[in-house]
Amino acid sequence: MSASDQGQPKMSPSRFDDDPVFVLHESGKIEMQATVEVTDNKGLAMAYTPGVGRVSQAIADDPSLVWRYTWRSNAILIVTDGSAVLGLGHIGPYAALPVMEGKALLFKDFANVNCVPICLDTNDVDEIVEAVARIAPAYGGINLEDISAPRCFEIERRLQERLDIPVFHDDQHGTAIVVTAALTNAAKVTGRTLGDLRVVMSGAGAAGVAIANMLLAAGIGDLALCDRVGVISRDRPELHDVKADLALRTNKANLSGTMDDALVGADVYIGVSSGTVEKEVMERMAPGGIVFALANPVPEVHPDVAHASGAAVVATGRSDFPNQINNVLAFPGVFRGALDVGATRITEGMKLAAAQAIADLVGDDLDTDHIVPDPFDPRLVSSVAAAVSAAAIRDGVIRTL
Amino acid sequence: MSASDQGQPKMSPSRFDDDPVFVLHESGKIEMQATVEVTDNKGLAMAYTPGVGRVSQAIADDPSLVWRYTWRSNAILIVTDGSAVLGLGHIGPYAALPVMEGKALLFKDFANVNCVPICLDTNDVDEIVEAVARIAPAYGGINLEDISAPRCFEIERRLQERLDIPVFHDDQHGTAIVVTAALTNAAKVTGRTLGDLRVVMSGAGAAGVAIANMLLAAGIGDLALCDRVGVISRDRPELHDVKADLALRTNKANLSGTMDDALVGADVYIGVSSGTVEKEVMERMAPGGIVFALANPVPEVHPDVAHASGAAVVATGRSDFPNQINNVLAFPGVFRGALDVGATRITEGMKLAAAQAIADLVGDDLDTDHIVPDPFDPRLVSSVAAAVSAAAIRDGVIRTL
Repeated sequence: MSASDQGQPKMSPSRFDDDPVFVLHESGKIEMQATVEVTDNKGLAMAYTPGVGRVSQAIADDPSLVWRYTWRSNAILIVTDGSAVLGLGHIGPYAALPVMEGKALLFKDFANVNCVPICLDTNDVDEIVEAVARIAPAYGGINLEDISAPRCFEIERRLQERLDIPVFHDDQHGTAIVVTAALTNAAKVTGRTLGDLRVVMSGAGAAGVAIANMLLAAGIGDLALCDRVGVISRDRPELHDVKADLALRTNKANLSGTMDDALVGADVYIGVSSGTVEKEVMERMAPGGIVFALANPVPEVHPDVAHASGAAVVATGRSDFPNQINNVLAFPGVFRGALDVGATRITEGMKLAAAQAIADLVGDDLDTDHIVPDPFDPRLVSSVAAAVSAAAIRDGVIRTL
Repeated sequence: MSASDQGQPKMSPSRFDDDPVFVLHESGKIEMQATVEVTDNKGLAMAYTPGVGRVSQAIADDPSLVWRYTWRSNAILIVTDGSAVLGLGHIGPYAALPVMEGKALLFKDFANVNCVPICLDTNDVDEIVEAVARIAPAYGGINLEDISAPRCFEIERRLQERLDIPVFHDDQHGTAIVVTAALTNAAKVTGRTLGDLRVVMSGAGAAGVAIANMLLAAGIGDLALCDRVGVISRDRPELHDVKADLALRTNKANLSGTMDDALVGADVYIGVSSGTVEKEVMERMAPGGIVFALANPVPEVHPDVAHASGAAVVATGRSDFPNQINNVLAFPGVFRGALDVGATRITEGMKLAAAQAIADLVGDDLDTDHIVPDPFDPRLVSSVAAAVSAAAIRDGVIRTL
């Protein structure tokens, strides 16, 4: 190629040069590449004009050919508005970009999905839906990311209604899939099933709501959600739609009061908030308790404290403790499986299939300190993808064109 | 990596399998790649959570760091609404995608610019401006492509007003740069300057308007634009804003009538339409005429006919005749140069500098059949980029953060 040595100017020194994470991030973590080499006018005439005109005309005549003769069948958008980035909160579209690049990197490395970062310069629901719907034609899926609740629920629902490609808010469903997989194995290793368990969840944002919905679909015994006000019950006034709906389907005893009250005798604590739980409260849980303290970087309760309080299984979001609950276990395989069969949406069945596939990868090595597979397990993505593809076909959500 | 063997299902046979252009286009022509390798949990903790959180927080504190620690400084959007694709017309966003992928491929191969295709599911000016402005934060430039006139003028103007990154409609300015470069050398090889030439242009769409503006800025002697109605004069009623403005600045003699009338005694014919010109009309041009018949794939007049009519220099858009006027001579170097210095827009000065740099690459080898360099000339992109960077600094359109 004529100009492969073209590039950006050399970097000047920076005050962050002592931090290897910043050095690694210089110029970003992703790039576009050509999959076709053009080295002469003949190549130009095939990959660009006039040759490309024949391909464009064929797609104009039969739009289904876009799936075969462009990258659309294997390219997705990763979309954020920068409103709920990691534990950092509303830091805006520029500051969100390194996280989106990281996600794009993982999608490619783990599952060979081409992933384009979109950081939106708006937090308005209507504007987000309009912008994303308008730019969708070149892409086969939408991964929403780090968008705060409750806007994330409406954005996902409206985009999925408008588009015939999968729309998947990873903070909700990726988290829910991995938590469901982990809880399935935590129940198994302690001699129970999901139906035997009463769960108390701290946090009723994007992740909490999605975990609740998925555990209900998976047949959880009972589940009470708690937000900053306390337990979500049918007597709570002024709940927004999503929480009001969950109040009808959770908390069988219609408990009210604080989360600490609800934890008395509970089998499972799931923390997806930035709250904390005291040791004395942990001790009031039922024997053989399961504690998923997923706040990052500081878990709601330290694993040592949870174990000392009698918990049988403890998981966190951190890689330096056993049982790391990490979305990277789910999202690469979910989209790989959806794209492989041309899915038009991600159904509950596909999500449950993903959770079961993740849980099933832990076999004879199942142990209280090993309830989920390693993210680098070479079977992971293909197992999840196969389960998701099969469920999509079963659920009949495959595009017909 | 755990799943580098993940991919899409094998292709079934297609009725296009006998055409090597379609075979080359299977699964598209571009992909995303990671520039950072993540092979273990340590790598995950640097490129993704928790490490990436430090980079995001730093950008939240100082947004200018987005240029250094993300791909933004070297990534652009290539945006179309599918309304004026090649010579195919309004074929929509799906059919436009192969062309956008081809453009992205060339941007990368020629100038190492990362280029993301956006095919818009709307032709409404307001909706296009809103969508593109909202998705801009992850990108350092916007290349508009294959958007029909007169909407393209307003879209470009409004986007450039809203954004502090370059917005460049290639069908306008890329074409204008290459035509100006070619005409500069065509004048030179026939012993004249641009100031000596009277031009008649067939076509007053995106390309025609931009070429007219640029030739005026470059000091052309005189120029008359012609559209389907005839010569654009100050007496023509109901001209839209852009044409009315050009009527005031072109056509010094205020000629009216048909293009054929205007061509009598003209030095230069530039065709950027799908019209045709008869041999008898060509013969009425002044001696030593210059003919740029740029319609694709069928030039407005065949080069043999133009030469037989007395033309001294003939150029087309085709690679199988001498003097191919191809935008690929301009756009890679223009964006390389703009991105290298952090330009906030593409000024007239930057475009004229690009045209001069292209023209200057033809030196002792200047000949009536060699007025522009080869697209694969290894000096091309770096020469254009250097000229554009210098002009951006001169014009003071460099971002301060």
